[in-house]
Amino acid sequence: MRRKGLASMAVQVTETATSPTVALGPAVALSCRECGQRFPLGPIFACQECFGPLEVAYDLPSGDPEGLRKRIEAGPDNIWRYAPLLPVPVDVADKPNLNPGFTKLVKADRLAAELGVTGGLYVKDDSGNPTHSFKDRVVAIAVEAARAFGFTTLSCSSTGNLAGAVGAAARRAGFKSCVFIPHDLEAGKVVMAAVYGGDLVGIEGNYDDVNRFCSELIGDPLGEGWGFVNVNLRPYYGEGSKTLAYEICEQLGWRLPDQIVIPIASGSQLTKIDKGLKELIALGLVEDKPYKIFGAQAEGCSPVSAAFKAGHDVVRPQKPNTIAKSLAIGNPADGPYVLDIARRTGGAVEDVNDEQIVDAIKLLARTEGIFAETAGGVTVGVTKKLIEDGLLDPTLTTVVLNTGDGLKTLDAVAAGPTATIRPDLDAFRAAGLDG
Amino acid sequence: MRRKGLASMAVQVTETATSPTVALGPAVALSCRECGQRFPLGPIFACQECFGPLEVAYDLPSGDPEGLRKRIEAGPDNIWRYAPLLPVPVDVADKPNLNPGFTKLVKADRLAAELGVTGGLYVKDDSGNPTHSFKDRVVAIAVEAARAFGFTTLSCSSTGNLAGAVGAAARRAGFKSCVFIPHDLEAGKVVMAAVYGGDLVGIEGNYDDVNRFCSELIGDPLGEGWGFVNVNLRPYYGEGSKTLAYEICEQLGWRLPDQIVIPIASGSQLTKIDKGLKELIALGLVEDKPYKIFGAQAEGCSPVSAAFKAGHDVVRPQKPNTIAKSLAIGNPADGPYVLDIARRTGGAVEDVNDEQIVDAIKLLARTEGIFAETAGGVTVGVTKKLIEDGLLDPTLTTVVLNTGDGLKTLDAVAAGPTATIRPDLDAFRAAGLDG
Repeated sequence: MRRKGLASMAVQVTETATSPTVALGPAVALSCRECGQRFPLGPIFACQECFGPLEVAYDLPSGDPEGLRKRIEAGPDNIWRYAPLLPVPVDVADKPNLNPGFTKLVKADRLAAELGVTGGLYVKDDSGNPTHSFKDRVVAIAVEAARAFGFTTLSCSSTGNLAGAVGAAARRAGFKSCVFIPHDLEAGKVVMAAVYGGDLVGIEGNYDDVNRFCSELIGDPLGEGWGFVNVNLRPYYGEGSKTLAYEICEQLGWRLPDQIVIPIASGSQLTKIDKGLKELIALGLVEDKPYKIFGAQAEGCSPVSAAFKAGHDVVRPQKPNTIAKSLAIGNPADGPYVLDIARRTGGAVEDVNDEQIVDAIKLLARTEGIFAETAGGVTVGVTKKLIEDGLLDPTLTTVVLNTGDGLKTLDAVAAGPTATIRPDLDAFRAAGLDG
Repeated sequence: MRRKGLASMAVQVTETATSPTVALGPAVALSCRECGQRFPLGPIFACQECFGPLEVAYDLPSGDPEGLRKRIEAGPDNIWRYAPLLPVPVDVADKPNLNPGFTKLVKADRLAAELGVTGGLYVKDDSGNPTHSFKDRVVAIAVEAARAFGFTTLSCSSTGNLAGAVGAAARRAGFKSCVFIPHDLEAGKVVMAAVYGGDLVGIEGNYDDVNRFCSELIGDPLGEGWGFVNVNLRPYYGEGSKTLAYEICEQLGWRLPDQIVIPIASGSQLTKIDKGLKELIALGLVEDKPYKIFGAQAEGCSPVSAAFKAGHDVVRPQKPNTIAKSLAIGNPADGPYVLDIARRTGGAVEDVNDEQIVDAIKLLARTEGIFAETAGGVTVGVTKKLIEDGLLDPTLTTVVLNTGDGLKTLDAVAAGPTATIRPDLDAFRAAGLDG
């Protein structure tokens, strides 16, 4: 995987391979996912040698898993309980931040009964985060990196959820903000992105256009002093998704699930959950055993699913057309890594159409009382399809991610009163309802 | 306070004053708030002697505050950590329920700076509950009572938030549901109330009309076997609000706040928070000291505020006209008790107009990154006004409740993009934004 377009954006870095002056806890360097070259911690995201994506490299605590487990369990009820495994300052919990995470892992017995899952079905419900999507996790980490690197404005390209998460986190943490979204997003996401103040810019185009624009802006003097959480802070930002893996395992009693179904937008979340699971194994926090990772897309934006089914290693970009706007990234940066992980773990990548997405939202709502965003409809719908196709084993422990909130995608769900009546018993009797 | 209209609805009860067969933890009876008469635990809500409202009476654990505190702290991260103080079965945490509560108590330093509060300002943010309002707390308790009394359908009259909370909880717990709302609610609340399935009935009228209709229905064969969470299950339901008091004190380090600002709809929440604080003192879980309770209303529905200012003991009903629809109860059942508590504790009841509500929503969003419902705008706006009027002491520890989520009252907040542009740098430069 080469990203020549990013070459000009990789800012100047020093020669040393570690970063003694940047205090981001156990993080010691950035490391190229492709060639392994190491760089000091800084606001860079592409390898200067091969243009591959950079990841955070750690000096993680080792040798005392029981002590580490106890330290985590005694920590706060949010992602900072995992601070020893994240690129954040040791005193992160004392800084103003939205403190997301440690959302509910819901044992979904009624959904399991409908889907025929007998091995235990769980919904990791990230609608419980401060701005009601998993994006609060990644932004919280990016905020700490932005502080460390002296940025004063937070920015991002967003399909909606991220814009709200950045706006809220910026206010709470005392940053300015300027965020970019496609001009045609759902009302709930637009208002939520705007209400915190700061600048919200609608871009005439789709997410991929917004993303290209932000890449230009970051190389321009206009963007100086700006931390783009999902561009120049992306290596840190991405690590926030590892906390989903940590929480799922801790909430299962420090145990790996057998199967996880994860939505794919850029693919970053899926790759980082895999990274998080591997870290827990390496640290001895969970017992090693096989697990399968499944990716979920909407049919109207299914470049990774299409590549998986065709047996390809690379992803052909698509022009998105789906109600699952938070997953509508036609050119997913981490697509190839997702394909690799799904194949290596024995999982799969599947997609469902808009009608199946809505049906799945309603299925989850009427079985578990969880009102998911369209992205949650995608994972639940794909889970159903994978079981029907024999690709997901219903006798194994399975976790399905709901990464957002139904209140942000109201238009996708046509739901209203069963009846509207005058306030009298005869009118109610005539309506013929029985609960 | 007499409620003659409820006389016919007080169902037949036995002669015993305790209820050995109903297993609701420490709850031992229902007790009349007016005359003290006790009744066995059952689905009744009005005293058969004087028609006063009934409350749950307990045999609470005493004599070992340190042991109780440790037991609570070792409990789950939701309201069931307080099960020893609630009318719920001892194994409540193992039953399917939405498990609300233990929401964030946010130290709001930036808001404090804007309001001039120096004694510590906290926002108790109940938008973090499963359906994003405090109603999940009261419904969770009502669900357990409904189970205990053998009801198969859950119902309620609602200004919106409660309808969603009941719909979701009913699905999760395996009940049928039929909920009633005014026909003209916000889209977010209507969809959320409908999406879980069950019946949702729009009533042509305001909340007080809906409430009257439900009171009729409960006395009719049509309503047989139905648990109306805020009518015949009201004594249990109301106890859920005590958990706000418990959490606030525990999150302050087992310490009473000096001042609390609470929204008033029916007034139940405010009275139960006071009850919860008094219980913590009686149990030795917090040190006794004075605290002041302030009530907050919207000017367009301010019957309690009007009575407070006029020095009246009773509340004259109003016809609501405000954007704070979740507080739009013109004839609040617990109004007189609210007046008593505000006066007894040295607090006050105040109101703000719609413009002040929207300003306060934006103030909270841009200082703390919390997007509140209109009800949250009411409490923040009233806090500001109380400080300006010298009624709330800014040098004391103050807690302000946000009981709902801005995503449910989007229309109240006019917020949109700062600019909409083509995806190029010149267009961005021309927009003249700086974050």
